[in-house]
Amino acid sequence: MLSFVNDYSEGAHPAILEALLRTNLQQEPGYGDDAFCASARQKIREACEDPSADVFFLAGGTQTNQVVIDTMLAPYEGVVACETGHVSVHEAGAIEYTGHKVLTVPQHEGKMAAAELDEYVSSFYGDDNHEHMVFPGMVYISHPTEYGTLYTLSELEELRHVCDKHGLRLYMDGARLGYGLVTPGTDVTLPDVARLTDAFYIGGTKVGALIGEAVVFPHGGMPRHFLTMVKQHGALLAKGRVLGIQFDTLFTDDLYTRIARNALDCAKVLREAFVERGYEFLVDSPTNQILVVLENDRLRDLEKSVAVSFWEKVDGNHTAVRFATSWATSMDDVLALIELL
Amino acid sequence: MLSFVNDYSEGAHPAILEALLRTNLQQEPGYGDDAFCASARQKIREACEDPSADVFFLAGGTQTNQVVIDTMLAPYEGVVACETGHVSVHEAGAIEYTGHKVLTVPQHEGKMAAAELDEYVSSFYGDDNHEHMVFPGMVYISHPTEYGTLYTLSELEELRHVCDKHGLRLYMDGARLGYGLVTPGTDVTLPDVARLTDAFYIGGTKVGALIGEAVVFPHGGMPRHFLTMVKQHGALLAKGRVLGIQFDTLFTDDLYTRIARNALDCAKVLREAFVERGYEFLVDSPTNQILVVLENDRLRDLEKSVAVSFWEKVDGNHTAVRFATSWATSMDDVLALIELL
Amino acid sequence: MLSFVNDYSEGAHPAILEALLRTNLQQEPGYGDDAFCASARQKIREACEDPSADVFFLAGGTQTNQVVIDTMLAPYEGVVACETGHVSVHEAGAIEYTGHKVLTVPQHEGKMAAAELDEYVSSFYGDDNHEHMVFPGMVYISHPTEYGTLYTLSELEELRHVCDKHGLRLYMDGARLGYGLVTPGTDVTLPDVARLTDAFYIGGTKVGALIGEAVVFPHGGMPRHFLTMVKQHGALLAKGRVLGIQFDTLFTDDLYTRIARNALDCAKVLREAFVERGYEFLVDSPTNQILVVLENDRLRDLEKSVAVSFWEKVDGNHTAVRFATSWATSMDDVLALIELL
Amino acid sequence: MLSFVNDYSEGAHPAILEALLRTNLQQEPGYGDDAFCASARQKIREACEDPSADVFFLAGGTQTNQVVIDTMLAPYEGVVACETGHVSVHEAGAIEYTGHKVLTVPQHEGKMAAAELDEYVSSFYGDDNHEHMVFPGMVYISHPTEYGTLYTLSELEELRHVCDKHGLRLYMDGARLGYGLVTPGTDVTLPDVARLTDAFYIGGTKVGALIGEAVVFPHGGMPRHFLTMVKQHGALLAKGRVLGIQFDTLFTDDLYTRIARNALDCAKVLREAFVERGYEFLVDSPTNQILVVLENDRLRDLEKSVAVSFWEKVDGNHTAVRFATSWATSMDDVLALIELL
Repeated sequence: MLSFVNDYSEGAHPAILEALLRTNLQQEPGYGDDAFCASARQKIREACEDPSADVFFLAGGTQTNQVVIDTMLAPYEGVVACETGHVSVHEAGAIEYTGHKVLTVPQHEGKMAAAELDEYVSSFYGDDNHEHMVFPGMVYISHPTEYGTLYTLSELEELRHVCDKHGLRLYMDGARLGYGLVTPGTDVTLPDVARLTDAFYIGGTKVGALIGEAVVFPHGGMPRHFLTMVKQHGALLAKGRVLGIQFDTLFTDDLYTRIARNALDCAKVLREAFVERGYEFLVDSPTNQILVVLENDRLRDLEKSVAVSFWEKVDGNHTAVRFATSWATSMDDVLALIELL
Repeated sequence: MLSFVNDYSEGAHPAILEALLRTNLQQEPGYGDDAFCASARQKIREACEDPSADVFFLAGGTQTNQVVIDTMLAPYEGVVACETGHVSVHEAGAIEYTGHKVLTVPQHEGKMAAAELDEYVSSFYGDDNHEHMVFPGMVYISHPTEYGTLYTLSELEELRHVCDKHGLRLYMDGARLGYGLVTPGTDVTLPDVARLTDAFYIGGTKVGALIGEAVVFPHGGMPRHFLTMVKQHGALLAKGRVLGIQFDTLFTDDLYTRIARNALDCAKVLREAFVERGYEFLVDSPTNQILVVLENDRLRDLEKSVAVSFWEKVDGNHTAVRFATSWATSMDDVLALIELL
Repeated sequence: MLSFVNDYSEGAHPAILEALLRTNLQQEPGYGDDAFCASARQKIREACEDPSADVFFLAGGTQTNQVVIDTMLAPYEGVVACETGHVSVHEAGAIEYTGHKVLTVPQHEGKMAAAELDEYVSSFYGDDNHEHMVFPGMVYISHPTEYGTLYTLSELEELRHVCDKHGLRLYMDGARLGYGLVTPGTDVTLPDVARLTDAFYIGGTKVGALIGEAVVFPHGGMPRHFLTMVKQHGALLAKGRVLGIQFDTLFTDDLYTRIARNALDCAKVLREAFVERGYEFLVDSPTNQILVVLENDRLRDLEKSVAVSFWEKVDGNHTAVRFATSWATSMDDVLALIELL
Repeated sequence: MLSFVNDYSEGAHPAILEALLRTNLQQEPGYGDDAFCASARQKIREACEDPSADVFFLAGGTQTNQVVIDTMLAPYEGVVACETGHVSVHEAGAIEYTGHKVLTVPQHEGKMAAAELDEYVSSFYGDDNHEHMVFPGMVYISHPTEYGTLYTLSELEELRHVCDKHGLRLYMDGARLGYGLVTPGTDVTLPDVARLTDAFYIGGTKVGALIGEAVVFPHGGMPRHFLTMVKQHGALLAKGRVLGIQFDTLFTDDLYTRIARNALDCAKVLREAFVERGYEFLVDSPTNQILVVLENDRLRDLEKSVAVSFWEKVDGNHTAVRFATSWATSMDDVLALIELL
């Protein structure tokens, strides 16, 4: 049975397991105060070309979104996201749990349009009753998006411009940032992300780590007493070293982007196979998530030999499904899948 | 430099790292739906002698306390803890963050007295104005306690009795449960804990795991839609396998208690050395945490060669410090420390 | 200067002020335990034809929505409302503040369609990932709606049917319920509301009271320890008598519906005048809120002599505004306004 | 039957009801934007001798404590109160509901000692682990206290000094402030309170109003977007005029302190009668709350003719009860009570 279900089906990149083994009995302080976290922070700052960036390691994506959004917003503020944003739909209300509303704007293949954001915020401030409404305080985008699409550099700059115009913070969910950074054709680099956002995270869970996400607050912008608030959210790990060792490994010798490239290489071959065979795509995604529309009969057949993710019903006879590749996907599996198509 | 600072200074027991390596490329579903979690759950049910127990894996101790207490309490209820309980003092307000008050009763070497609990709850219900107050809904105890002490079986039974009398749930924080279960002289077994509590957790972080705590709800008592509420708290790991593999390993061939015994063996030798040399203990703790009162000058000297935890000031000239042993402590280090005493 | 800005511009119906004066020095217990609240509760039960209904008095509308929704939902549940529902837009995030998401469905002149609700909830439960999403737990409707429209009895019955099908509670925001109950042509009575909902409130603030809303939980459905949770939300008045006296007065000799009729009589005359003069309506509302589309120049002129509420921009040259009548509107003012049209 | 149960058993001072009647049909904007609120604010600023003070009107005491404390604290901060403080015990967890811990220090007849506060905060910052604990952010005191006692001016100045030393805000619960200001022998004036605190409220509910508390933020210190946060807490009244009219009346011609004096005059006569007859006091309270220790038999007798508040059991044979006088107490009732003693 082949699996293209998602990009978190395996454990960790072998180099990470080796690092865990190698350092296992070294005694270190807890709560992120260890030498591995310090080293990883420094390497991430360098990769971001932002020597004053604050870096904090958390365990998972929803946790990171919850902690960052809650600690950066004022109590009277909400976060603006696409109606398909992960925080809008698939986090079980984790943002609302912290008291903040997720305000929504339309999505375009998972992306937010700067002009629509501007219109939304302008009309909020233009409303006589806006003091009875939730203030937009932050913009949440994901890159790659939930649909596997990417912002261009100029789109990010426009969003930044609208945020500056209205005093909003810009936050990027980078659960799959590694894949986005190495996608052929992208003009967005890690230093660009650090330059244009107020906070973002470099996803580990889906890009080779066992667990872990590295939150970056460019220009020393970490909220005051952030560690205490992380603890208050139940998100502070005693053995912070587990996160530090992993990110230290991922940011040594470009491992993070090198392993991400495997996913893109596999996705390229697979995407071309779909094109050649005349398959239709739900969305034209360039990253490691390929959304394909299949006839239901065809899908039932295929699912006997390969696991994929249900995405959405297209019509009575067609279904969109996701084929995800990852750092761990083998080209052999891709070729075996193509054989089946 | 020797370190007896705490029991989470190292990585994980080698068997866990081996298991992570061995299973690394096996593809598994996310969010705890994997084969390793299933196997670990079954082994824990067997160890608890409770075939209907629900088991859920979380990442850390404060997170576990927060999620369990919040999801088991009604909105108008608080949790009763000792004034020295971890949830009362050292979790940055994680319980209050979820809207619940921590109600406190006195502590006796870290333990709650059943009679005082009874008195507290009785006088609450005896108060005409109790509808304007926070209802006691649950009792939080730690075993071992924050002072390294242990409840006896009859003390636990008395607490259970008071809880039954007043309709309270009983929750045990088992961050160091492994050490407690193998302490010479204890009459409390894991099946006892499962029989007497409504929820408890088996600590992994401090007993040989990289991260992870196994929450047990005896008799199928897990709150409805618990997974959704875990997600809502930001506490659901995508790669649940990381937790499953560790607990599956720890509960294979009694590894959990076997490695805990090393801590107790080391503590025994160390404790006897303190006694022989006439040191005074702050509390007579039988587990892996030894609280010793030192003259400040003596402490300053000692700290040149060995790291310990500050506990509290005793008077102007004396300080209580904690020497903690763990699954990873080597007898050589213990002997080296004794040499220094 | 005439004012048709809203229905809460004046104080209270004179009978209420007289009752406050008459009872002023009578000593009564606090927190709703007084004789006036008891009497008002009984009269409301009778008006609802539900002898077992629980009735609780609160101070304002947003407070009532917040307390009722938060105390009736499980932690993993959200409330489904129209995208124009008051709780969705105009309560500054008061629902999210309590940790619950407001889930939205489309609106049709402010109303929710039972079929769309059914579709929404069915597709939620049809989604494999719904355990990672907020569960729909309750339906929020307003009657009259924010647009002044009314549900028919059969529409309410259909909503009830969908709620029963999916185990949802049905809650009605009755901020202007009095006006709705006396609107010519409505087939919805107060006993219907009590029969078809799980909770609703009878608005006082906008229908003749100084402050106050009467929450009704039909069939003894008040959440356990509701008073304590009201206190916990900061919503319990020490002088509950102030609310009791007002609702006791409003529910004596049908005062509540009698004074509501004045608003409808005035609205009828005013609406006919708009029709005669060829004005266009934004929505065909039968209650005390008339939404009229005006040319911007015409509006600027009119606003020199009459205060109205801005509603929304229709296009570059036209604006929709609201003319609201109330229990306190004088027919003379209506005629003076018509003169100006 | 005589009643000395509390100071909120009656309606409002007649001048307030007259003002409500007189202004009843005057049309005014909602949400505190009316002429009466504006006038009341100005009069309160003058009474405080602080022309830049921000003033906001809320409905009740617990609500006010909840909103003020939540909006002034950072998320990682708690409020320090006496263990007998109203927010610690009798508000059903309203502070914790907003996510903040109530940290407690000992009480001395209901009062906080500046030296003990200093010690508490100093030892917090002296603790190596304080980043894992709740930061003290604000001090809550009540004046008069829950025991009817008063701070002296120098005691308030010392508390202010400790607050300044540690960067804490000082908040005074003035539910009964009127009675405190006119107590014979007090050296604390309203301008002193405005000078020494960061926020306080002038209680209306217990000093002659139907409902209402006036929150004062000296020196323009109201939190940004306070109205929105009040709305978010469900605490914003549509008819803000109801609060404005009452406080405008209370702060015209010193009505507030004049009516408070009646309570003190009655309390003086009553207290002397107790002293003459050899009754013992639980606490030596100078304000309108008299805490007397009675033999249980004597109490049972007395309760046949006079209603009082149970305070606490003193021993098996004695009970402390509270006799409260108010703006509405008649000297005839006091004399009738003395007759019974």
